[in-house]
Amino acid sequence: MATVSLIQYDEASAEVREVFDDIKRVRKVDDVTNFWKALANHPRTLKRTWESACEVMQPGALDALTKELIYIAVSVTNGCDYCTHSHTAAAVAKGMTPAQHGELLAVIGMANEANALVNGLKVPVDEQFLK
Amino acid sequence: MATVSLIQYDEASAEVREVFDDIKRVRKVDDVTNFWKALANHPRTLKRTWESACEVMQPGALDALTKELIYIAVSVTNGCDYCTHSHTAAAVAKGMTPAQHGELLAVIGMANEANALVNGLKVPVDEQFLK
Amino acid sequence: MATVSLIQYDEASAEVREVFDDIKRVRKVDDVTNFWKALANHPRTLKRTWESACEVMQPGALDALTKELIYIAVSVTNGCDYCTHSHTAAAVAKGMTPAQHGELLAVIGMANEANALVNGLKVPVDEQFLK
Amino acid sequence: MATVSLIQYDEASAEVREVFDDIKRVRKVDDVTNFWKALANHPRTLKRTWESACEVMQPGALDALTKELIYIAVSVTNGCDYCTHSHTAAAVAKGMTPAQHGELLAVIGMANEANALVNGLKVPVDEQFLK
Amino acid sequence: MATVSLIQYDEASAEVREVFDDIKRVRKVDDVTNFWKALANHPRTLKRTWESACEVMQPGALDALTKELIYIAVSVTNGCDYCTHSHTAAAVAKGMTPAQHGELLAVIGMANEANALVNGLKVPVDEQFLK
Amino acid sequence: MATVSLIQYDEASAEVREVFDDIKRVRKVDDVTNFWKALANHPRTLKRTWESACEVMQPGALDALTKELIYIAVSVTNGCDYCTHSHTAAAVAKGMTPAQHGELLAVIGMANEANALVNGLKVPVDEQFLK
Repeated sequence: MATVSLIQYDEASAEVREVFDDIKRVRKVDDVTNFWKALANHPRTLKRTWESACEVMQPGALDALTKELIYIAVSVTNGCDYCTHSHTAAAVAKGMTPAQHGELLAVIGMANEANALVNGLKVPVDEQFLK
Repeated sequence: MATVSLIQYDEASAEVREVFDDIKRVRKVDDVTNFWKALANHPRTLKRTWESACEVMQPGALDALTKELIYIAVSVTNGCDYCTHSHTAAAVAKGMTPAQHGELLAVIGMANEANALVNGLKVPVDEQFLK
Repeated sequence: MATVSLIQYDEASAEVREVFDDIKRVRKVDDVTNFWKALANHPRTLKRTWESACEVMQPGALDALTKELIYIAVSVTNGCDYCTHSHTAAAVAKGMTPAQHGELLAVIGMANEANALVNGLKVPVDEQFLK
Repeated sequence: MATVSLIQYDEASAEVREVFDDIKRVRKVDDVTNFWKALANHPRTLKRTWESACEVMQPGALDALTKELIYIAVSVTNGCDYCTHSHTAAAVAKGMTPAQHGELLAVIGMANEANALVNGLKVPVDEQFLK
Repeated sequence: MATVSLIQYDEASAEVREVFDDIKRVRKVDDVTNFWKALANHPRTLKRTWESACEVMQPGALDALTKELIYIAVSVTNGCDYCTHSHTAAAVAKGMTPAQHGELLAVIGMANEANALVNGLKVPVDEQFLK
Repeated sequence: MATVSLIQYDEASAEVREVFDDIKRVRKVDDVTNFWKALANHPRTLKRTWESACEVMQPGALDALTKELIYIAVSVTNGCDYCTHSHTAAAVAKGMTPAQHGELLAVIGMANEANALVNGLKVPVDEQFLK
């Protein structure tokens, strides 16, 4: 169903296995998810994406759960099924409560509505936001 | 430049003024922003949007700043200039630091990239995410 | 500011002038808008787009104003400034009242919100909609 | 398959049941659709969304069918499967003919094409649209 | 599962058959794909879309494969499953290698990330790009 | 007008200057564009984005111009003004002719139209595309 074959560990090149091993070690999982198996068709994209994910999603000025919520907001707005499912699961694993999930979706919904209203009204940006 | 005229307080109907007064009171501002002045062309949408904003954006299971970050994530993904400007300003007013802003944008960027990769690869959703 | 030069009638090729003349005749205007002047850089796209517009936007099972409202709904959702401005003006010229404009935007806003809620909840399509 | 469980009437809280009862009464149906069952995980969003839908989708300056067409235009442009299915069904129930459906999609298609052409050409907005 | 029935050749009108015959002849296939069978519900859209496809996708200043890559870039960005599948297959049929596919997706991913970063930062267009 | 200040070379940290110097050297320019000056507010994102751009946009299985066309297709579809301007300029610098630009936009327009038609018709993916 994917546009590429999903590369399993057993059939992966050494270059791919190195990334898979790192993902399994860092995330403490027995196998990588389909996202990584699909990316493995282009080893450089696999490696670069994994390194970016490590850098971007690690706790910093924003904690790990907040970053997942932001990730979900983008994925929902883009209508990306896979990312919505996988990052909702990731957020739950990081402690997102049903009440937080409900509020997250309410904000995402409202922002999408307001974006559309603003686009239709072509509201000029207030002076105060431009300094 | 808007597709409607911006309704100023002085020329507003009693119905609109009531909402404007409430916004000014709750937000402790002297005047409402252009978003509300544009919405005022359709008083029911003005009233409903304001009431929704009060309900949705108030602190709850998620704090007020986290809600602004989610709002920005949606607005940036939709490419909505006005909302990006106004909610970035709102987030700063609620305490968003430059480091948090930087990480917010990094996550938004990465999520948009991953959404596209997933869409192009048509990655099937892992079983573990479907229970 | 455009990524191409805007082709004026005086400098246009015969092929382009033929389309411009047709637009001016059908729309009863003295000059074509910037959209057509920009498209004129690629005469085949100009001609094909004009012919498609004539076929698609003419009154049929749906009247001309309803078609403009649909066009605006798409343009607002895509955040296309030019098309939102030009088709809002076109709708007004075809009789759209301020009340209709207000309700149009309310529906566009609500649909964008509901789309996001559905995407975030990953609501399965009801059986009744699949027959 | 949803990211939340679908709340059935029998297991719903009194707060949720009240909204479900109202939907069933107004829409003259025996059961609510999956959209509402999913929203029921966050009762305030359920209630607010239902109230907004009642206000926004009721016949007014625009009739009920025209509002469904606009809703479809947004949902198709956002690629929202659920909303496209459910509101196409709703439009058919309100009298949309196959010819109207065909013209609706033709306009949606053309608008999406024109939005892209305009975005690529960066067509400046004509003076006449800015007053 | 479609919102319309798929029109098979045997049940098609003469008007539709004429287009189907042309597609089968030009593409050297025994049957048209579901896209055309769905479009056949609105014969004018079927005919116009086929004629546009012939004009737009034919080799010209850009070769046929490059056009498929561009088509995929749009379809992936819009999250259109059908078009991503069908045009990835078309690109493979026109000679796209796995390495080209990998680089295509890498560019699509990066562009979506950069678009988001730019939207969030609201980067002003450099003078040099505006002449 | 940006949501951050644009970091000029003179005021940049050593970490930022190192990236700026590399961009100037590789691209043979006297100053970096606003995109990089805005990203410089978050040095890690600046560095990571530059390194990704070097890897992703370099000629490989696809040549540099084709990559720019793909980048433009994404940016136009997302309605990103800055990226459309900057990458159209980059494509011209890499040899894109007006005829190629015209065909590029025609394909982008047609793909956006077809995506919308497919989304509205909910065309099921043909068996042949799923193996």
